[in-house]
Amino acid sequence: MKRLISVISYDGSAFHGYQVQPNKRSVQAEIEAVLSKMHKGTPIRVFASGRTDAKVHAVGQVIHFDTSLSIPAQQWKKALNSLLPDDISIIDVTEVEDHFHARFNVVKKEYRYKMLTTQEPNVFKRHYYYHYPYQLDHEAITQAMRQLVGTYDFTSFCSAKTEIDDKVRTLYEVELLEEEGELIFRFVGNGFLYNMVRILVGTLLDVGRGAIKPMDIKNIIEKKDRSFAGKTVPGHGLYLWKVSYK
Amino acid sequence: MKRLISVISYDGSAFHGYQVQPNKRSVQAEIEAVLSKMHKGTPIRVFASGRTDAKVHAVGQVIHFDTSLSIPAQQWKKALNSLLPDDISIIDVTEVEDHFHARFNVVKKEYRYKMLTTQEPNVFKRHYYYHYPYQLDHEAITQAMRQLVGTYDFTSFCSAKTEIDDKVRTLYEVELLEEEGELIFRFVGNGFLYNMVRILVGTLLDVGRGAIKPMDIKNIIEKKDRSFAGKTVPGHGLYLWKVSYK
Repeated sequence: MKRLISVISYDGSAFHGYQVQPNKRSVQAEIEAVLSKMHKGTPIRVFASGRTDAKVHAVGQVIHFDTSLSIPAQQWKKALNSLLPDDISIIDVTEVEDHFHARFNVVKKEYRYKMLTTQEPNVFKRHYYYHYPYQLDHEAITQAMRQLVGTYDFTSFCSAKTEIDDKVRTLYEVELLEEEGELIFRFVGNGFLYNMVRILVGTLLDVGRGAIKPMDIKNIIEKKDRSFAGKTVPGHGLYLWKVSYK
Repeated sequence: MKRLISVISYDGSAFHGYQVQPNKRSVQAEIEAVLSKMHKGTPIRVFASGRTDAKVHAVGQVIHFDTSLSIPAQQWKKALNSLLPDDISIIDVTEVEDHFHARFNVVKKEYRYKMLTTQEPNVFKRHYYYHYPYQLDHEAITQAMRQLVGTYDFTSFCSAKTEIDDKVRTLYEVELLEEEGELIFRFVGNGFLYNMVRILVGTLLDVGRGAIKPMDIKNIIEKKDRSFAGKTVPGHGLYLWKVSYK
């Protein structure tokens, strides 16, 4: 028995999210079905760094699983890619120590949120960018982003549905990347609450269009109340970009 | 009665091509269905600059149709976009003279073929780029491209299925655009035969990997025989980029 860690990428468009849900297509179910087939019907459970929601993409999601097969790690990638549907791609597979856990050992995660800012929509980007053709004050957004770096109770930026008690998280980097016709919101932190990135982006858009001031971010954090933050932006602009371990 | 001309873009992934085909999803059928609905059931026929195949995309396809509705041209765009599926986008609608024809009045067309050249595939580009992770001699391809500019009988670069007799076309510009991890083949001409761009790219790839020499292109043209040219590359990398009229 050995434990394998794998970096995977997926196009979230046709998934109801990462996690297994009855009668719905999920990334986890697709991977577990392929692994079970490879293990002649023995169910294989896959553990991810965390779940992603419907339509949300991954450039560098990380999973782990245990196997009794004697396939060398470097051949796993080819085997899995040949069996998986084409909206999931295995980037890397390596052997790891038995006590490694894709979720519990995470030290840092990066998410990116992509927006298309051109006046016209673009059919080729409709599943991959949130189309937002409105004027935004980039300097104000950048100022607001600086308020978010640090360790805070992010209750205000978390779906009210969350059952987790400890809502303290640390954001290490928050920045705005500008490319022609695109805006990318980048977040690096030790962990993220349910819908946290999407609510943070929705609130930063309120700052960008002048509905609230950059300095209001601190007040919203202090309120510890979801209703003071902005809207949850759509899932299809969100990417789990990178997961880091010790 | 007035005639309208419209520039449209579509993601070809979920279409069996531009043209109406029984029991298959086509761009033309989707647009005609919406127009018929707007005209209270009266069938409206749409004429395009030319058809595109299954999976082939359009950034600037052009269509025309006649209407008895008194909607101003600038409101047509909004009306059509609100009724059409989200893989078709209306870029522009303007009124045009009665004798204008989207197909017969074409003076120039531009096609682009996009390839992803990174070693790894990319789930987000799988419907929009042909993945070709092999070494290519760009200088040889560029030399071969120069042989293609001019007026020739392109029988060798045309699907044997074509029923058109006159296979003489003029290519004005043929060039290779290089971006990080991408290669784009650009063709501008007065018209293109069935599968012509895809066979030209397939043949240029033969040049790029050294299977044939840049100077062999002239021989292939002279043979007037499809079997001397390269493979037809997949449709999903092809874009009808622009159509020009007088």
